[in-house]
Amino acid sequence: MSNTIGNFFTFTSFGESHGVGIGGIIDGCPPGIELDTVYIQSELDRRKPGQSTISTPRKEDDKVEFLSGIFDGKTTGTPIAFVIWNQNQQSKDYNHLKDVYRPSHADFTYQQKYGIRDYRGGGRSSARETASRVVAGAIAKLILKGIGVSIQAYTSQVGPIAMTETYETADLSLIESNIVRCPQSDIAEKMIKYIADLKKEGDSTGGIITCVVKGVPTGWGEPIFDKLQARLASAMMSINASHGFDYGKGFDGVSLKGSEMNDAFVINNEKVSTRTNNSGGIQGGISNGQDIYFRVLFKPVATISKLQNTVTTSLTETELKARGRHDPCVLPRAVPIVEAMAALTLVDLFLNAKATV
Amino acid sequence: MSNTIGNFFTFTSFGESHGVGIGGIIDGCPPGIELDTVYIQSELDRRKPGQSTISTPRKEDDKVEFLSGIFDGKTTGTPIAFVIWNQNQQSKDYNHLKDVYRPSHADFTYQQKYGIRDYRGGGRSSARETASRVVAGAIAKLILKGIGVSIQAYTSQVGPIAMTETYETADLSLIESNIVRCPQSDIAEKMIKYIADLKKEGDSTGGIITCVVKGVPTGWGEPIFDKLQARLASAMMSINASHGFDYGKGFDGVSLKGSEMNDAFVINNEKVSTRTNNSGGIQGGISNGQDIYFRVLFKPVATISKLQNTVTTSLTETELKARGRHDPCVLPRAVPIVEAMAALTLVDLFLNAKATV
Amino acid sequence: MSNTIGNFFTFTSFGESHGVGIGGIIDGCPPGIELDTVYIQSELDRRKPGQSTISTPRKEDDKVEFLSGIFDGKTTGTPIAFVIWNQNQQSKDYNHLKDVYRPSHADFTYQQKYGIRDYRGGGRSSARETASRVVAGAIAKLILKGIGVSIQAYTSQVGPIAMTETYETADLSLIESNIVRCPQSDIAEKMIKYIADLKKEGDSTGGIITCVVKGVPTGWGEPIFDKLQARLASAMMSINASHGFDYGKGFDGVSLKGSEMNDAFVINNEKVSTRTNNSGGIQGGISNGQDIYFRVLFKPVATISKLQNTVTTSLTETELKARGRHDPCVLPRAVPIVEAMAALTLVDLFLNAKATV
Amino acid sequence: MSNTIGNFFTFTSFGESHGVGIGGIIDGCPPGIELDTVYIQSELDRRKPGQSTISTPRKEDDKVEFLSGIFDGKTTGTPIAFVIWNQNQQSKDYNHLKDVYRPSHADFTYQQKYGIRDYRGGGRSSARETASRVVAGAIAKLILKGIGVSIQAYTSQVGPIAMTETYETADLSLIESNIVRCPQSDIAEKMIKYIADLKKEGDSTGGIITCVVKGVPTGWGEPIFDKLQARLASAMMSINASHGFDYGKGFDGVSLKGSEMNDAFVINNEKVSTRTNNSGGIQGGISNGQDIYFRVLFKPVATISKLQNTVTTSLTETELKARGRHDPCVLPRAVPIVEAMAALTLVDLFLNAKATV
Repeated sequence: MSNTIGNFFTFTSFGESHGVGIGGIIDGCPPGIELDTVYIQSELDRRKPGQSTISTPRKEDDKVEFLSGIFDGKTTGTPIAFVIWNQNQQSKDYNHLKDVYRPSHADFTYQQKYGIRDYRGGGRSSARETASRVVAGAIAKLILKGIGVSIQAYTSQVGPIAMTETYETADLSLIESNIVRCPQSDIAEKMIKYIADLKKEGDSTGGIITCVVKGVPTGWGEPIFDKLQARLASAMMSINASHGFDYGKGFDGVSLKGSEMNDAFVINNEKVSTRTNNSGGIQGGISNGQDIYFRVLFKPVATISKLQNTVTTSLTETELKARGRHDPCVLPRAVPIVEAMAALTLVDLFLNAKATV
Repeated sequence: MSNTIGNFFTFTSFGESHGVGIGGIIDGCPPGIELDTVYIQSELDRRKPGQSTISTPRKEDDKVEFLSGIFDGKTTGTPIAFVIWNQNQQSKDYNHLKDVYRPSHADFTYQQKYGIRDYRGGGRSSARETASRVVAGAIAKLILKGIGVSIQAYTSQVGPIAMTETYETADLSLIESNIVRCPQSDIAEKMIKYIADLKKEGDSTGGIITCVVKGVPTGWGEPIFDKLQARLASAMMSINASHGFDYGKGFDGVSLKGSEMNDAFVINNEKVSTRTNNSGGIQGGISNGQDIYFRVLFKPVATISKLQNTVTTSLTETELKARGRHDPCVLPRAVPIVEAMAALTLVDLFLNAKATV
Repeated sequence: MSNTIGNFFTFTSFGESHGVGIGGIIDGCPPGIELDTVYIQSELDRRKPGQSTISTPRKEDDKVEFLSGIFDGKTTGTPIAFVIWNQNQQSKDYNHLKDVYRPSHADFTYQQKYGIRDYRGGGRSSARETASRVVAGAIAKLILKGIGVSIQAYTSQVGPIAMTETYETADLSLIESNIVRCPQSDIAEKMIKYIADLKKEGDSTGGIITCVVKGVPTGWGEPIFDKLQARLASAMMSINASHGFDYGKGFDGVSLKGSEMNDAFVINNEKVSTRTNNSGGIQGGISNGQDIYFRVLFKPVATISKLQNTVTTSLTETELKARGRHDPCVLPRAVPIVEAMAALTLVDLFLNAKATV
Repeated sequence: MSNTIGNFFTFTSFGESHGVGIGGIIDGCPPGIELDTVYIQSELDRRKPGQSTISTPRKEDDKVEFLSGIFDGKTTGTPIAFVIWNQNQQSKDYNHLKDVYRPSHADFTYQQKYGIRDYRGGGRSSARETASRVVAGAIAKLILKGIGVSIQAYTSQVGPIAMTETYETADLSLIESNIVRCPQSDIAEKMIKYIADLKKEGDSTGGIITCVVKGVPTGWGEPIFDKLQARLASAMMSINASHGFDYGKGFDGVSLKGSEMNDAFVINNEKVSTRTNNSGGIQGGISNGQDIYFRVLFKPVATISKLQNTVTTSLTETELKARGRHDPCVLPRAVPIVEAMAALTLVDLFLNAKATV
C-alpha cells in the first residue's frame, strides 16, 4: 500500500517493468464520457520510451488495452481496467543487478522493506509504472476538458539551463515543437545539447517542469488536509525522481514582503478577479478562479553508466557500472506524467466539490 | 472534507478561531503510551500566540483538555479527544471584514465554496486551527521518541536573510535559544531585526523552515502514492501559508549531475550506509536509514496593516486597512507545527509498515 | 480504529461511559443546513437512560453542546464537533468488575486486544457511546427530511412476543405512544409486562427492531462493495448487542420461489413502480424508489443480576453477580439508534450519488 | 464507487459478464507468500458455471492469469493484478433484454443511476463478478492458513429444506461430497431433488449458507464501526442475491433470555474459554478465540423462465419470459464466495490488528 490515488475518481496501479504488463483500474469515473482512445494513445506516445535521441533506447509500443467499464464507446460508471503489455523486456541486462544495490535507487529500500524484490529493470520501482498513470490521467483530462479546464506542462529548466520566459510570456503552443518539451526555442536547443553531452559521458541531469492549469472554477480543494496545493504536492512527489514542489511565486519569491506578494482583488467583467496572481490560483487551499501554476523538481536519473561505489546484497563493498537502458534526463518524458497527475488530482477534487454542497 | 489526516494514526481537527474552542480526535493511537501532559503543553507553548515581541499580541493560554482515550495516565487504544477552549476572542475587531475580502486570504474562496463563512478571525481558515495539530503531533512525537526517532525544525531563512550553516554543521541545540528559532545566532539576530522593522511598517515576511528527522529505520513509506516524500509534502503543504517543499538537496541542487547527486553505498559498522545524503534519507519513497531532511517555504502573512485594494462581498472595489491581531512573520511559531506534521506523517507510516509485512 | 463511519458525511465518535464525556465530529456536512437544536435534543431524549420503568435507572440529562461548524444557526461546511458531558457516573459501582470478566461482554476481548481497559461502566464498549451517534444521526435526518426522506423504526418483537401487523398495516404514528415503542398497542402491553417480569428476576431479553425508510429516490447505493444493503447491514451490526440483519422479505421469506419473490414492474403515474416490494426497495445494491425496510436483531443485555460463572483477570474461575445499572431490554432505547445509523448511512450514500454522476 | 473492499489487504474488482474479462487488483498482500496457483484454481473451479446438473449451463474455463506482484513464485508486497478472460459469452441471447427491465434484477436501478448500462448478461451486476472475489479470497485463505485459521461454508437450507444438524454436530468433511455442498447427506439429496424440480418448472429458490471459521485468535475486529460482525455482515451483504445475515445464535435465538444466551467463561488448559458459544466467537466486535459462525440468506435467483409482468425502458407495461443461462439456485456455487468474502474480511482485520498495537 498504497497503490491507489484519489477518493472519488480513484486510480489503482499495478505492474512491474519486466513482468507481463502494467496497468490499472479507474473507479468512480462518471458515466457517459466518450472514451477518445486516439487521444489517450497520443498521450501515451508522448511518454513512451525510444521517442527521441535523448531518451532511453528501450522500444515499447505502449498500446493500451481496455478490459472493462466501456459500452458503446462510452464509460458506464463501472471500473475501467486496462493493461499495457510489456514487450521489449531485456531482463538479462539486469542480471548483474541481482546482488548489488544501485546508488540512489530503490533497490536497497525495497529489499529492506519487503525482504524480496523483482530486480529486473527495477521491478515495481521502475518509472515504467507511470505509463499507467498517463492512461488514467488522459481520461481525467477528457473529463476536465468537457468542463473547460486545460492542463499544460513543459520543461522549464535542465541542469543549470533555465528558461527566461514565464508561463505568461512564453508561447505554450511551442511545447511539443522540440524533443525536450520547452516552449522557448533557443533555450530548448541548449537543453538538448546539454543532455546529449551528458549522455555521451554516461552521466545524467535533473531539472524543473512547470505546469499551468487554466479554467478551474472557484471552489475546488478541501480544507484542512486536502488543500488543493497539498493534493497537488502529494501527486507530484509521488512521481519517480521528483524532489521538490512549489506553487505561485514559490521559492523564487521568498524575499517578497506581504505588500508585494498579496494579490489585490479587482472586479473584472462583474466578476471577482485578482490584479496579480502570486498565489498561483489558490487561497486557503481552495481554487480562486485564477490560473493555477506550479513547479516540480526532478533529480538526475540515478542509473548512470559511470563507475560508482556501492555494496552487494551480502554487504560487501564493490564497484558498479550500470548497464541496461535508461534516460540521461527524465524531464521530456515526465511532462505528460506531471499533466496526468495534475489531471487525476483535479478531477478528484472536482467530484469532491460536487459532493460537498 | 477532509479534516482528517492519516490512515492508521488518524487525526481529525475541528474548530474556528472565534468559536467556542478548537480541538480534535486521534484515532489509532497504540495503547499503553504514557501521556506526558507536561510535554504536550510545552509543545503548545512553543506555538502559542503572544510569546514574543515578534508574534501576534493575541493572548491565549492554550491549555489542552483531554476528554477520552486515557486511563490511569495511559492511552487505551480508544479515540483521544481534546479541546483547547478559546478565551481571548475579540470578535468585534473583525466586524469590518464581514463584507470585504482580504487579499490573498481565504475569505473569498470559503464564501464561494460554501456560500456562508464565519468571518470572525478568519473562522476555520485561521492558523489558530494548527494548535490542535501541535497537540496531536506531540503525542505522535512521544510514540516516535519511544522508538528512537527525533524531529527538529528551525527557521533557516526569513525574507532575504538565510543561514549559511547546514543542518549538519549548525548546533541544533541552539534552536530554542532565540525567539526566531534559528540555530545560527548571528543570523537569528538579523532575522529578528528584519521582522521587527516590517512590523513597524505594517508589513510582513515569509521564509523557510528546515526540518531534520533522525533515527528512522529503513522501510517507512509506501510505494506508489504514499511515498514518504509525497506524504511529507502533503502534510507540509496543508499548513497555512506554506508555498513550497523540497527534500534532500532540493531546488538548490538542480544543477547537480547524476554522478554528483548519487549517494554511494558503503558499509559502516556492518550496516549499509551512504557516503553522502543528497537523497535526504529517502529512496523509492522508502526511508533508507539516513537522516531525513526537508524544507518548507512560507509566504508572507497575508493580513497586513498597509492599505490594500480589494472588493466587497457585493462586488464593488474598495480599500482595506486590516485591523485585528496578526504576526508579521509566522515562521517562529510555525516551527513546532512543521515538527507536529512531520510526526503525524511518520507515526502513520510506522504503523503502516507494521501492517505491511 | 475505526471510530469513523461514512466516506462523505463522516462521523467520528469518542468517549467512555465513565470518562469526562462522549461526543464526536461530523465532517462533510453540507453548508447552510439550519441546525434545529430542539429537534436534535428531542432525539437524544428518546435514547436517554432513565426515561421509563423498563430502562436503566442511570440518570443523565444528555444535553449536547456544539463546539464548532455552526454560524448564525446554520452549518458552515466545516467540522461540527459536539460533547455530551457525563454527569451521573457512579464508577465505584464497577470496582468489583476490575478483576473479573463479565460473560458475553467486551471486558475480556478489550483486555486481550489492548492489554489495558477502562473497566468503569464498560468504558468505550458501553452502549453509552451510541448517544453520540444519535446526535450525528439527527443532523443526518434533518438533511434527509429536507429532500423528502423519512426514517421510522419500532420494536417489532421482544423475546417470544412478536407483532402480527407488518410495517404496511401497522399505524406507525403510535410508535411513541408507549414505552416499548411498538405501534401495535396490545402487543406493546405484553412486551412491557414481559420485560418488567424479567427485570424482577434479574434477567434480560432481546428482540427485533424493524425500520422503514420512505422517500429515497432511485440511485442511492454503490456497486459492488458499497451496496445499500451492505452499508445498512454494517451500520446496524455496529450497534452494541445487534446479532442479525435482513431486509425485504428476509429470513421469513426463505421458502419463497423466484416466481413468488420477484417484484413485477408496473407503471404508476407514469413512473416505474413495483407491484410487490419483497426486495425491500433495493435491487443490485441500489435503491429502486420503493420503501426500504429492514430488521435488526438484538441479543439480550449481557449484564444481568443473576449469578453467573466466569473467570478473573488472573485466570481463576469465579462467580459473578453483576451490579451497576443496566436495561433489562435495550430495544426501546435502541429504536432511535437504529434510525440514527440508517440516517448516517443514507446521507452518506446520497452525497456519494451526487459525486458519481 | 466502490469496487474496493478492505483497508489493509484491499481488493479492487473490475469487469462485466460479457466484456473482455473480469479480474482485480490486490494491494497490501504481505510479501513472501507462496502463491499456490493449483489451490487458487481449485477454488475457482468450485464456483465455476456448468459444474453440475443444477447449475447454469454456461461453460467457462475460468482460468486465472496473474499479471503482477509475483516473483519466483512468491508475492513481493506489490499489487497482484489478475484477469479471468471471458470465453463463452452468448451476448445475442440477451438482445431481448435491451429494452426491458427484468423484475427484481439490477437492470432498472443501473439504468436510473448511470443513464447507461451494459445489458449483456447483466453487465457489471452479473454474479460472474464474484469469480474475481474467489481468486482474491483464495490468496487471503492461503495467508490465513499459514497462521492456523480455516474457513468452511456449506448449504444449510434450500427453500423449505433445512439441515437438522448444527455446525458442531455435522461432519464438515462431507461438504464437497455432493453437488449442493450440504454436509448432511440425506438432506442434500432432498435439496438436489427440490432444485431439479424447480429447474424443470422454470422457477428458482433461495436458501441459507452457514460458515464456520476456526482458529481466529483473540483481538481481531475494531471497535466501533469496524466491529468484526459489522465487517462480516457488510462483506456478505455485498454478495449478489444475499438478503440477510446473522451470527452466533442469530434470529433462531430471539426468545432466549440473558441467562440462557450468555456464554460463561471457564478456564481450559490454562486459557480463557467459554462453556457455550452463543456469541459466535465475537464479543464487543472483537474475536474472543472461540469458533466464529454465521449465516447468510440468499433470495431465489431473479432470472426465471416463467412469464412475468414488467415494463420496457420506454415505460410501457409488457410481459417477459427471460432466456439466457442461469442457475435455479445459487447456493452451491455461492459457498466458495461466502468463504472468499470471509477470508478477505478476516485477513484485513488481521493486518489491522497488527497495526493497532
